[in-house]
Amino acid sequence: MKKLINDPKDVVAEALAGMELAHPELVISHDPAFIARRDAPVQGKVGLVSGGGSGHEPLHGGFVGPGMLDAAVPGPVFTSPTPDPILAATKAVDGGAGVLHIVKNYTGDVLNFETAADLADAEGIRVRSVIVNDDVAVKDSLYTAGRRGVAGTVLVEKIAGAAAERGDDLDAVAAIAQRVNDNVRSMGVALTSGIVPHAGEPSFTLAEDEIEIGIGIHGEPGRERISLEPADAIVDRILRPILEDLPFSSGDQVVLLVNGMGGTPLVELYVAFRRAAEVLQEAGITVARSLVGNYTTSLEMQGFSLTVLKLDDELTALYDAPVQTAALRWGR
Amino acid sequence: MKKLINDPKDVVAEALAGMELAHPELVISHDPAFIARRDAPVQGKVGLVSGGGSGHEPLHGGFVGPGMLDAAVPGPVFTSPTPDPILAATKAVDGGAGVLHIVKNYTGDVLNFETAADLADAEGIRVRSVIVNDDVAVKDSLYTAGRRGVAGTVLVEKIAGAAAERGDDLDAVAAIAQRVNDNVRSMGVALTSGIVPHAGEPSFTLAEDEIEIGIGIHGEPGRERISLEPADAIVDRILRPILEDLPFSSGDQVVLLVNGMGGTPLVELYVAFRRAAEVLQEAGITVARSLVGNYTTSLEMQGFSLTVLKLDDELTALYDAPVQTAALRWGR
Repeated sequence: MKKLINDPKDVVAEALAGMELAHPELVISHDPAFIARRDAPVQGKVGLVSGGGSGHEPLHGGFVGPGMLDAAVPGPVFTSPTPDPILAATKAVDGGAGVLHIVKNYTGDVLNFETAADLADAEGIRVRSVIVNDDVAVKDSLYTAGRRGVAGTVLVEKIAGAAAERGDDLDAVAAIAQRVNDNVRSMGVALTSGIVPHAGEPSFTLAEDEIEIGIGIHGEPGRERISLEPADAIVDRILRPILEDLPFSSGDQVVLLVNGMGGTPLVELYVAFRRAAEVLQEAGITVARSLVGNYTTSLEMQGFSLTVLKLDDELTALYDAPVQTAALRWGR
Repeated sequence: MKKLINDPKDVVAEALAGMELAHPELVISHDPAFIARRDAPVQGKVGLVSGGGSGHEPLHGGFVGPGMLDAAVPGPVFTSPTPDPILAATKAVDGGAGVLHIVKNYTGDVLNFETAADLADAEGIRVRSVIVNDDVAVKDSLYTAGRRGVAGTVLVEKIAGAAAERGDDLDAVAAIAQRVNDNVRSMGVALTSGIVPHAGEPSFTLAEDEIEIGIGIHGEPGRERISLEPADAIVDRILRPILEDLPFSSGDQVVLLVNGMGGTPLVELYVAFRRAAEVLQEAGITVARSLVGNYTTSLEMQGFSLTVLKLDDELTALYDAPVQTAALRWGR
């Protein structure tokens, strides 16, 4: 294993310390571990909390700030945070208007966020939860009942964050988050595996000419292993099930996110973006907004995922609203 | 070789096509190949052109836009663009106030930008050039006489771009760019090699427990190969020569850039940032501004570089000025 780490057990804590030093606009709580925007709680604003296992950076800590999350709770690598830090983050960002939990659909995350929500409720904080399950690859995977939550989570966090920022109440913000989830679909591919620090070896192995279609962001099995194909063929292979699933159709306006899994050169992500955008164009679907880069990673995994979100006027306006986070930033 | 590409010879052209589809705020010229901001030429503003071999993305195309570059010229992977596209980009962005070329110090780039500058001059466009050579690792490396230009280039482009945007004339913008170069130092480390698409195999090989200190962004040899060490020890090893070189000293205000080489997980870059910031603090040096992420890459190389820029009030204000590019974005 070659990794840029010290003791494997310290990776998450040391990375948090790094975030604290790099981003003075964030407040870092070390024990319990969570990341919050400096001005939290914002009085009268719905608070947004997400979190999950570490190793998917910039998800979620890179998306904390005005216009997106109020707090993120990082668990150990690929392991859900326990209810305690989730509860602490929830209390830290409650400005009296309640808190929305945005939870990727993994059994541990769902359970721990649910427990934290119950505990917060007992302390008089109203919590609603939205479960993100955008991955069309498989159902009832390792760690998951139902579909997995993957890179579509970034769009749920961005758009719900904008709704909270404009003053929507808790039910309205939850409804917007649910609407994004209902309209977003994703699928990924792995060329290589990531290496969990405390495991010290790849989570799975692929032959030298083999790739995995439908990979999960923890290296969970996908749909099939096939021989390496040209990028265009791979894009076609994962874009089709995405489009058929919603289904997307001619006339739709979409966000197209080409997400790197952590170890893929950006120049290659643009090659994949090109093909995906062309296929959408041919289907009469307009790529109204684009994101290309590492947004929801799996450590150093080489590979990528495609995420397509069907927009409407309101979702577009919320997507375009200003955001100021470490990893996503636009507007004033 | 596992890469997300089609034909290796099409990678750069297809990635450019991807950028065109993803970023409508850019204008892409395909033949000759360059990327320009949509409103170029901006009348009365000094134009900024950079470029070099592809494979370092987001450098340089990701830094085209208001507040930074007017155009970027991508050559083949790890190979300088020829004078023709550099000349074409120079003409495309000249708004009557002349054009600054920002050139990383590699023999091919220096020669080709020089030729393009002479040709532009013959057409009545005034061109000045700044050579970036921030890498303290080695002198007279493969491809380079003198020191190499690496991730410090991003800071030269950002700060000179802000100077041009506020209306400085060509000599003043060139002087600012030179001042950034004079005050910035970098050094990198490789854990693994990148794979040039048309080569199809790693540019160099390291043993399973070996890393290369002082690596170049094309995989050129550094100072030494050593056994893998904890992240903190590696950071100490490359930060010391950076600090001694300028030298930086107690009381300095700096930008600290922890740059991923393309294949390193973000969580690990934050581990490295933590240590680098701590060492600077102990030396009485204030980390006034921070960047953590993939800014100047070497394809899928695992590794990172540290860049430290000594700030003064003017450089700080220019660093903070708004920028709107695909890969670097803040302010309005």
